[in-house]
Amino acid sequence: MSSNTFGKLLSVTTFGESHGPAIGCVVDGCPPGLVLDAADFVADLSRRASGRTRHTSQRREDDTVEILSGVYQSLTTGTPIALLIRNTDARSRDYDDLLETFRPAHADYTYWHKYGIRDPRGGGRSSARETTMRVAAGVIAKKWLRERHGVRVRGYLAQLGAITPHVFDWQAVEQNAFFWPDAAQVPELEAAMDALRKAGDSTGARVNVVAEGLPPGWGEPIYGKLDAELASALMSINAVKGVEIGDGFAAVAQRGSTHRDELTPQGFASNHAGGILGGISSGQDITCSIALKPTSSIRIPGRSVNLRGEPVEVVTSGRHDPCVGIRATPIAEAMVALVLMDHALRHRAQCGDVVPQAPRIP
Amino acid sequence: MSSNTFGKLLSVTTFGESHGPAIGCVVDGCPPGLVLDAADFVADLSRRASGRTRHTSQRREDDTVEILSGVYQSLTTGTPIALLIRNTDARSRDYDDLLETFRPAHADYTYWHKYGIRDPRGGGRSSARETTMRVAAGVIAKKWLRERHGVRVRGYLAQLGAITPHVFDWQAVEQNAFFWPDAAQVPELEAAMDALRKAGDSTGARVNVVAEGLPPGWGEPIYGKLDAELASALMSINAVKGVEIGDGFAAVAQRGSTHRDELTPQGFASNHAGGILGGISSGQDITCSIALKPTSSIRIPGRSVNLRGEPVEVVTSGRHDPCVGIRATPIAEAMVALVLMDHALRHRAQCGDVVPQAPRIP
Amino acid sequence: MSSNTFGKLLSVTTFGESHGPAIGCVVDGCPPGLVLDAADFVADLSRRASGRTRHTSQRREDDTVEILSGVYQSLTTGTPIALLIRNTDARSRDYDDLLETFRPAHADYTYWHKYGIRDPRGGGRSSARETTMRVAAGVIAKKWLRERHGVRVRGYLAQLGAITPHVFDWQAVEQNAFFWPDAAQVPELEAAMDALRKAGDSTGARVNVVAEGLPPGWGEPIYGKLDAELASALMSINAVKGVEIGDGFAAVAQRGSTHRDELTPQGFASNHAGGILGGISSGQDITCSIALKPTSSIRIPGRSVNLRGEPVEVVTSGRHDPCVGIRATPIAEAMVALVLMDHALRHRAQCGDVVPQAPRIP
Amino acid sequence: MSSNTFGKLLSVTTFGESHGPAIGCVVDGCPPGLVLDAADFVADLSRRASGRTRHTSQRREDDTVEILSGVYQSLTTGTPIALLIRNTDARSRDYDDLLETFRPAHADYTYWHKYGIRDPRGGGRSSARETTMRVAAGVIAKKWLRERHGVRVRGYLAQLGAITPHVFDWQAVEQNAFFWPDAAQVPELEAAMDALRKAGDSTGARVNVVAEGLPPGWGEPIYGKLDAELASALMSINAVKGVEIGDGFAAVAQRGSTHRDELTPQGFASNHAGGILGGISSGQDITCSIALKPTSSIRIPGRSVNLRGEPVEVVTSGRHDPCVGIRATPIAEAMVALVLMDHALRHRAQCGDVVPQAPRIP
Repeated sequence: MSSNTFGKLLSVTTFGESHGPAIGCVVDGCPPGLVLDAADFVADLSRRASGRTRHTSQRREDDTVEILSGVYQSLTTGTPIALLIRNTDARSRDYDDLLETFRPAHADYTYWHKYGIRDPRGGGRSSARETTMRVAAGVIAKKWLRERHGVRVRGYLAQLGAITPHVFDWQAVEQNAFFWPDAAQVPELEAAMDALRKAGDSTGARVNVVAEGLPPGWGEPIYGKLDAELASALMSINAVKGVEIGDGFAAVAQRGSTHRDELTPQGFASNHAGGILGGISSGQDITCSIALKPTSSIRIPGRSVNLRGEPVEVVTSGRHDPCVGIRATPIAEAMVALVLMDHALRHRAQCGDVVPQAPRIP
Repeated sequence: MSSNTFGKLLSVTTFGESHGPAIGCVVDGCPPGLVLDAADFVADLSRRASGRTRHTSQRREDDTVEILSGVYQSLTTGTPIALLIRNTDARSRDYDDLLETFRPAHADYTYWHKYGIRDPRGGGRSSARETTMRVAAGVIAKKWLRERHGVRVRGYLAQLGAITPHVFDWQAVEQNAFFWPDAAQVPELEAAMDALRKAGDSTGARVNVVAEGLPPGWGEPIYGKLDAELASALMSINAVKGVEIGDGFAAVAQRGSTHRDELTPQGFASNHAGGILGGISSGQDITCSIALKPTSSIRIPGRSVNLRGEPVEVVTSGRHDPCVGIRATPIAEAMVALVLMDHALRHRAQCGDVVPQAPRIP
Repeated sequence: MSSNTFGKLLSVTTFGESHGPAIGCVVDGCPPGLVLDAADFVADLSRRASGRTRHTSQRREDDTVEILSGVYQSLTTGTPIALLIRNTDARSRDYDDLLETFRPAHADYTYWHKYGIRDPRGGGRSSARETTMRVAAGVIAKKWLRERHGVRVRGYLAQLGAITPHVFDWQAVEQNAFFWPDAAQVPELEAAMDALRKAGDSTGARVNVVAEGLPPGWGEPIYGKLDAELASALMSINAVKGVEIGDGFAAVAQRGSTHRDELTPQGFASNHAGGILGGISSGQDITCSIALKPTSSIRIPGRSVNLRGEPVEVVTSGRHDPCVGIRATPIAEAMVALVLMDHALRHRAQCGDVVPQAPRIP
Repeated sequence: MSSNTFGKLLSVTTFGESHGPAIGCVVDGCPPGLVLDAADFVADLSRRASGRTRHTSQRREDDTVEILSGVYQSLTTGTPIALLIRNTDARSRDYDDLLETFRPAHADYTYWHKYGIRDPRGGGRSSARETTMRVAAGVIAKKWLRERHGVRVRGYLAQLGAITPHVFDWQAVEQNAFFWPDAAQVPELEAAMDALRKAGDSTGARVNVVAEGLPPGWGEPIYGKLDAELASALMSINAVKGVEIGDGFAAVAQRGSTHRDELTPQGFASNHAGGILGGISSGQDITCSIALKPTSSIRIPGRSVNLRGEPVEVVTSGRHDPCVGIRATPIAEAMVALVLMDHALRHRAQCGDVVPQAPRIP
């Protein structure tokens, strides 16, 4: 019942605090025979890392993964894969003035009331530093999904504050630091971020993730629904306040005659459902979207209280992201990939010998 | 790893098909000593039941709960509480013409591809009939939360198609069949529903749930976050396509200086977070919101395919809801209550002897 | 985390008290397509039922299973299978004089201290009545194992008090009420039981279970070991005080040169290990053995205390088994079958596509 | 559903291979506020370590624990506690001649058939090296049980081959390398071990564990029974073939009038049950016993097959224990402590507010 463990058949347990000696994870349940070594983790960890551009936190995370177990001669063995990253650029003194103060909109106040104690250095366990290990675990899931099932999971920044893309181009996404699908808008984003940083404020964002290539039939009914577990996985990412599958909240004002995705021998006529019906994949693209709140670590003074309940003024120094949504794309991809791989294994367990009696829509 | 089980310390396992002999659930983990008998279930099951007004399905569900175990002399004993409801008004023949057809936007196609078999009568296991048992289990959670912790969970319909309430009044909510917080608008809703029914179409809706009276500290970090588990619980309800906590997607366009809820000795200055910080309750009201898609069981003909992959035209007869959102309010309340009770128990397990060292904000 | 649920991928949740309205279970995770109907349960429930001979409790359990869900047109659908048995021959008044007394060696005292309340009628939840549903669930597992994998699970009484069989014959086992493998000894057993009943006392017993036909590779390492989960499953049966795999406690005095089962191209040279190495099946027969204590419900007066801590004398009236081990054979078989089916599914999940690179020993 | 995770509310996930870079564990669910630092682990890890005397494996394990997370200023914070031990004295070349051979009575054959691959260095994941982390995790459980509940868990070697102790003295146990309760017999044990080592053979053993100071009421009914989970925990230890609670297999030949532990206002009159009734602690000492097989890594040649199924002769070189039971005492203690702490938390979750209505027997 560990709250630091995610997944049922592919389970990921993470550990570590922002400014402790190390962060790490244990990935249990990965099938044997997957080619894996430390180099596999470089690309996605770099996509998530801070300090890449002036638009993210200037903490320089040199995230080198050490594989401690579960891999022999570059093949997974079926035993737990432990991954370790040492924390290097930790400046705990930056947080000394927060020892006695609850930052607004942080977990400071709630951790204190739950546990009666907290590690205040960089947010301790509640820091988004933990998401590094989600990305690392997600690398394994992405690779397995791609190699075993031809499933591809990728995401992009779909809104930054009030800015939305005018055109959509997957090629553009990986060619700018924002994961933005409209190359022409990048200067506008940079200007917006510069202005935000200058103002000492932060902004919210929306990230979309798409999974392509799933067969119909992955997922579970009732409480283990694919969309329910995606919702949990995505909502568990720091700063996420909303999750949509397919049309999401737009469905509220739709008619059934519009929303239903008609089936034809040539395929589904639309994809309002986001590739999931009754909690089970339909074979269409899985589409989901998350809302990330503006980070609360800003330089504009705010009201708070201290451990004694007295009013104080808080200004967050330290190194922070003016828009955590920018770096959230690889994290969201990782969570989606982990959920899908888990469901692929669960499907195989119960229905591994089912031969569908109806043709699959292309 | 049962996908038909929900919750960790308070676990609910449901079973049953729409037109099978019975539906039921097993609630395990309820503390001993709670006063409980069959009469407790009447109110909420009636709120969820169809056939109350002309605006919901005309299936007449006479949902009488039989307590099979776990209660002795009207007190829970700490052993599993099994609840049973016999299906009575099942007209399976209504579904004969669907035996070989996949209804658009239903689970027909995905269940078939997953299991190679399905119970076609009324949607079988994928029917919203299952939510009856969620409501029944939720009755126990609501009662325990109220009696042991003074926590109250209640919801309302916040949007029906394009219609939103002009004023908000909790008193109005229980005085109309829509759970609508603006009494003056009820005629407008009725007219809209009549038009919809006449058109043979359906509409989406939004339901909000509020939990009042929580202490700070309930919830877990990382993957067991209170908001993550609420997201899963709510997304697992039939027809839900989106979940928001607090400001939800509105946070995308907000600034940090707006979104952060400042703390003062007199209390929080706002509640954009929806009562949860870092996955743990802050003591403010928990607020969440769900998007329900328009039901796909409509009388307007649509394209589909049959078991042999041939094109067919589908018209859904049978008895259906033109807006499943209307009856979703008690279901969403139940899921929220079940998550909260589960977390109350989990909190007690790990932190039952913690004495918070800081004063609680009122 | 339900303590009334057993198994990971094939999960069984039982409910019900000895003298409540009904007992039942929910079996979740059974693959679709298994032929199943109520008649399948008759044989094993009859083997477990009391009242068959004068040597077991005279409670007349007319255990008719009703399938409430998960089966459509005699095929499992992959959704949860709920089974229900109404309690009929319940004589709760037999227990009136126990309301205030803790029977020695019963769960009376411990339930009372744990829950502060208990259902005293016939032992309530702690009664072996619950094992009826284990047997029912086990019927599904046995059938699936046999039909899908050619695995056969069967057991026998291996010791009754001080009596052990002189010869071993599987054919004899099902031809006497004791599941005894030596037909010639049955009169001796009957005489021993008659003497015991006359003395108002009870005796312990040993039951052995054998599973034949497993492939090598089922099971998990470390904490999910096949033998570890068999130990838990078997120890969870009422009255069991010891579990052995293979040679069990005899291995304490053995030498390694004796115990190790040598491998030859023609097969293993012996089976001291009981078919499990490193927690994983070797392909040999799985053999396990359990010790059942003498039931404590006897007519010989004993000392105890009442709810106020005062000394009292207890004589157990009611209807009881002088040797619970006699009826334990089908229960132990059921638990072994459930563990094996669970592991078969778990193996398929992680290693479903493994092609072993070495020949299997015959 | 990780098979490398143990426990429900206090969950321990271990990772690592015998000759990989490191072994480690993540302990999740420990309450906050427990004083803990690296020095706490020294004593028990030293008790388990090999290379202490000539009677155990000569592998020199310098087991220094690094705490990677979950502890701040020597206090547990409620977040996951990760522990790491680097493997130092690994001589993988010792195992080169086993690359293609299945050692009799090892997990070689079964891992190969399950996973199609294995790490052959020192047994890889199936090595008893893994138990180091069980002992480390157990240190936390033992400390918490002692400090919060006054519960003490300790064990001893109760039989070595055919030798049993003549007298019992807890004081003697920690004063010899065998954890033997009869100081006068130590020379006899040493002579027996020397003879065994000279013969190149190995022997089985029995270890007993006692937990003192439990309150009545810890444990769960049915499948989460305290004895069932102890059985699983103990059977999961390498080489264990049998588990007994209380009188164990001796109960087979007992009468009910003997076995039942009568209650008197002064206490229980005996403890045949081993402190557990109906799966729940009675407040008496918990007593359990395990059988450990003779290790199969011996120098006496034995028959086996290789990867191609051809007959080969095997002699196990490398560094091995002639009696793994000797070092099993701290491992068994750790597993018992972990189960008890888990149940203490589970009890608090469901029954934390129960006020027992009957006096506790002293």
